[in-house]
Amino acid sequence: MTERPDQSPITSPRSERVRKVAALTGRSARRKQGRFRVEGPQAVRSLLAHRPELALEVHLTERAADAHPELERLAREAGVPARLVDEQILRAMVRESGPADATADGGSGPAGSVGTGSPGALVSPQGVIAVGALPPEDPDAATAALEALPDDGPLTVVVLHEVRDPGNVGTLIRTADAAGADLVLLTRTSADPYSPKAVRASVGGLFHLPVLTGAESGSLLEALAARDITAAATSGYADSELFDVDLPDRIAWILGNEAHGLDEETLAAAPLTVRIPLAGHAESLNVHTAATVCLFETLRRRRAGA
Amino acid sequence: MTERPDQSPITSPRSERVRKVAALTGRSARRKQGRFRVEGPQAVRSLLAHRPELALEVHLTERAADAHPELERLAREAGVPARLVDEQILRAMVRESGPADATADGGSGPAGSVGTGSPGALVSPQGVIAVGALPPEDPDAATAALEALPDDGPLTVVVLHEVRDPGNVGTLIRTADAAGADLVLLTRTSADPYSPKAVRASVGGLFHLPVLTGAESGSLLEALAARDITAAATSGYADSELFDVDLPDRIAWILGNEAHGLDEETLAAAPLTVRIPLAGHAESLNVHTAATVCLFETLRRRRAGA
Repeated sequence: MTERPDQSPITSPRSERVRKVAALTGRSARRKQGRFRVEGPQAVRSLLAHRPELALEVHLTERAADAHPELERLAREAGVPARLVDEQILRAMVRESGPADATADGGSGPAGSVGTGSPGALVSPQGVIAVGALPPEDPDAATAALEALPDDGPLTVVVLHEVRDPGNVGTLIRTADAAGADLVLLTRTSADPYSPKAVRASVGGLFHLPVLTGAESGSLLEALAARDITAAATSGYADSELFDVDLPDRIAWILGNEAHGLDEETLAAAPLTVRIPLAGHAESLNVHTAATVCLFETLRRRRAGA
Repeated sequence: MTERPDQSPITSPRSERVRKVAALTGRSARRKQGRFRVEGPQAVRSLLAHRPELALEVHLTERAADAHPELERLAREAGVPARLVDEQILRAMVRESGPADATADGGSGPAGSVGTGSPGALVSPQGVIAVGALPPEDPDAATAALEALPDDGPLTVVVLHEVRDPGNVGTLIRTADAAGADLVLLTRTSADPYSPKAVRASVGGLFHLPVLTGAESGSLLEALAARDITAAATSGYADSELFDVDLPDRIAWILGNEAHGLDEETLAAAPLTVRIPLAGHAESLNVHTAATVCLFETLRRRRAGA
């Protein structure tokens, strides 16, 4: 899928190679090229340090190379070329082309988005871009990742099911990482975590823990049960409150769509449903707020129990 | 500041009255007109039910009036006109004009935004819009709101200091509401909670609890201390961890800028600083995630202690 990178210097912002990197804003181009784009020093550092096997090439300005000397060292250690380019070339590599991209990324609804910047907006790559090899979307890989988890001991899995906004997907991955989740699985109806918007919002989280796409929600619930991991969901109608209920040591939080929440079928199939207490007049929480409360309560219990 | 609403039917999307409602996207127009715009059935319902004294007029489609019969009833009870308009008139009332609005709203940075939709995007008002009287931005009002709080018993105050993105401001107000905060104060360098983007993101939260703008951070810390409310901030360098530390019954969580966090001076002046434990490889949390963890831990303790 991914060709050997061309080593010659890039001199024109209109060159074929620049256009191919810019095209990675769209999902179909990512699939066709088998590559994805990573922007900014923090995310590129995370890619090179945590998932060097995915890295294909790094483009950076002289200024960014001076400000972040570790980037060239990490690229060398990962065995990938780090090329100095002009700021205008870097900017041409992230030029997003507006509405078409939002569709390509799975649609960015106006309600409940926690995305980082609007499609079509000029996003600064802060002097550095990397291109990585796109991991295949494969339901078997999701199951295999579950099977690779330890047989006993505490575990936290996060499942994103029908989370449509790439910014939300990225932010949820960042929060899952911060709360010490062991694995993030996305069903095939969720937005692509390898869209530039999701990668930006994850602030490196995408490379800090295993994130697998293309899972099937039905077989996923079975696979979780087979690994003795309790699937848990939030619902405003649940009898048990999060802060009172016993949380299992091995838990998978299933998070649903921004607007509609989790579908009835998945909710009914989850062995544990909890209600997050709401104290004011708010009728609901957005998916990221709910996930944050559940994941940090899980972390708090784990630390209290350790 | 606010004139008596014209009672005649609106027939053209290009009429002066439609343009004046559309202009409320910009901060200067809101100040000049002394009015702000509320979109969607849920937010309009919250305005009419919780802050009827602010409501000036309601515009809705026949379809929305049928789907949400309580809106006309609430408008009647609030003593404000509810006028049936065509869908195209309603859409013209929310037409946002792009980059200029982002600036008017205090700038929508690409990093760390948890906003709801991009400026310039077509946002559907879901059949209903209200116009409200803009409360004045007044540092004395912020102090007066603190003085109006009970003299003893538990309290949670949320202070937004230099939170620049209107979507973040709205989402933080929504979460403060859900976690049972008693009061939200914004310093004058924060984004305007009455921008349509912030109002949308707050999902009615803006009308569920007192939200005051224009506070001065220095005198605010003194006013909090005078009311026996402990100002608390998060810092990655704090010695105490949130989950281990004793939280005072009367607490004000001070939340800072999306990119830079809280300024050194404010951080140093806060009597309590805590660290949110991070379990993975994440280096930080965004301001909304950090706020959610702190506010719901405060709520959890309060309920456990009650």
